[in-house]
Amino acid sequence: MDLIYGIDLLGTMVFAISGAMAANRKGIDIFGATFMGFVTAIGGGSLRDVFLNIRPVWVEDGNYLLAIFTGVLISVLFNKNLYSFARTLFLFDALGIGFFTIVGVQKSLSYESSAMAAVMLGMFSASMGGVIRDTLMNETPLILRKEIYASACLAGAICYVLLHMTPISENFNAFISASLVFLIRFLSVRYNLSLPSVPPVEEKET
Amino acid sequence: MDLIYGIDLLGTMVFAISGAMAANRKGIDIFGATFMGFVTAIGGGSLRDVFLNIRPVWVEDGNYLLAIFTGVLISVLFNKNLYSFARTLFLFDALGIGFFTIVGVQKSLSYESSAMAAVMLGMFSASMGGVIRDTLMNETPLILRKEIYASACLAGAICYVLLHMTPISENFNAFISASLVFLIRFLSVRYNLSLPSVPPVEEKET
Amino acid sequence: MDLIYGIDLLGTMVFAISGAMAANRKGIDIFGATFMGFVTAIGGGSLRDVFLNIRPVWVEDGNYLLAIFTGVLISVLFNKNLYSFARTLFLFDALGIGFFTIVGVQKSLSYESSAMAAVMLGMFSASMGGVIRDTLMNETPLILRKEIYASACLAGAICYVLLHMTPISENFNAFISASLVFLIRFLSVRYNLSLPSVPPVEEKET
Repeated sequence: MDLIYGIDLLGTMVFAISGAMAANRKGIDIFGATFMGFVTAIGGGSLRDVFLNIRPVWVEDGNYLLAIFTGVLISVLFNKNLYSFARTLFLFDALGIGFFTIVGVQKSLSYESSAMAAVMLGMFSASMGGVIRDTLMNETPLILRKEIYASACLAGAICYVLLHMTPISENFNAFISASLVFLIRFLSVRYNLSLPSVPPVEEKET
Repeated sequence: MDLIYGIDLLGTMVFAISGAMAANRKGIDIFGATFMGFVTAIGGGSLRDVFLNIRPVWVEDGNYLLAIFTGVLISVLFNKNLYSFARTLFLFDALGIGFFTIVGVQKSLSYESSAMAAVMLGMFSASMGGVIRDTLMNETPLILRKEIYASACLAGAICYVLLHMTPISENFNAFISASLVFLIRFLSVRYNLSLPSVPPVEEKET
Repeated sequence: MDLIYGIDLLGTMVFAISGAMAANRKGIDIFGATFMGFVTAIGGGSLRDVFLNIRPVWVEDGNYLLAIFTGVLISVLFNKNLYSFARTLFLFDALGIGFFTIVGVQKSLSYESSAMAAVMLGMFSASMGGVIRDTLMNETPLILRKEIYASACLAGAICYVLLHMTPISENFNAFISASLVFLIRFLSVRYNLSLPSVPPVEEKET
């Protein structure tokens, strides 16, 4: 339990770093960077909890906010250096979305959502923070662009819900499903893979 | 009751088609199209439910998600052909927003919102899905442009709340008010009507 | 109590004016102006209440909606003249965000959020309405630009939470903390102050 709590705080911090770095890249002031770190880190999980009609965890547990401020501080102090760690940060992020997806599915199921809703809410947990980050920065959200990101979360969430119906232990299931998210994300970036889109319709002149 | 439930699922599917088609037009991948279909279909109703402090219906009833995936599938498989049905889709959409508006007002009243809040929440139910769709696609929301869309919903919602104070039966009231939304929407597109805006203030050089 | 209720309604009205004026400037129709006035006025407080898992106040108390419609009406009728009152409106807005911040902190604490979460939610109450307004208008939110706005709210919220631990009376604390928000906002605009940003990283050619 303590391990999961620790990973959750660490993942929150990594998300806060990603939000604050996006703000730093655009020359936004340090308050704006803190704000972006905050909404990126809490956005996905808060939306899930709001839909489950429960309170987001950070409203009562101050440690999440401390993790966020630590992440923002790191991004402000070590901004330049962080770019040398781009690969490390990418790995952390890929691990983080795998973890957040599965935690999101588990929480939704334990609050009695349907299995399908748990899949959507697990995917939301991991990806909506980034959607809010991109929308506030006035950019088309990453998940609407060509990269495989939230679809990796979706695959992992579906995997968890399916294995949940088998006698496999919950912990083992969580490990397999989170690894699947990580692997899909990792391989898609490594080999530059993307999903097909529907061919656009040519508009005829009339 | 079963009829209303069926219409609700059908309306959800039509909204999902509209969201997914918007994504297809921009060359977004099939996952992004699914995501857009989903948020367009559930956005308005979920926001209403969150403000009423209850759980959105799709969190517990998997049929809504099935309706959405069916809509997305239709938009992906029949993308090109759907444009030939543009007129049919428009009629479905106009019927859909009429229906969603009134269902939204009824639900809000039954959860003891004030009459005025029920009007706003009814209008939200029908129009916020599209607002979220446009915002995520990085466009100015349709309802902030010249077309009469959410204002048709507003008129229908006000009509329902006013007739609700008379001895008219609830079903008849719902039918009249939903038809009003449909009629305003239909006629405004047919005759290219729009609401006035406040004349912009000329900025003086100083 | 009646005074605070009155100020709350007045602040709501001022926020509605600011939202509707933003819409008027872009030539958006009167429905869109009403919609923008509404979301600007209720956005911040509603988000706070949703995170606290309670119902936003306007869902049950129709007076807030009346205050908003009054604000929109003022902005539509006196649009041109309001620009002559730009300074007055600025002062009202600065007072308003001070007031909303502290009310937001108090409400969050009374619903048993952690002290740190109360700070964030107080800042949210006063500033998220504007963030939603700017995002819907497809602009980079004001609080991500150079002006000191939400950071003034943050300072006031922190001040309140800190003084809350001392024997100072709640009313006196509220007065001091709200004045701090007002003063920081006022002086930063008067003397054109801004927070530093993290220097952008030069991208090396490779």
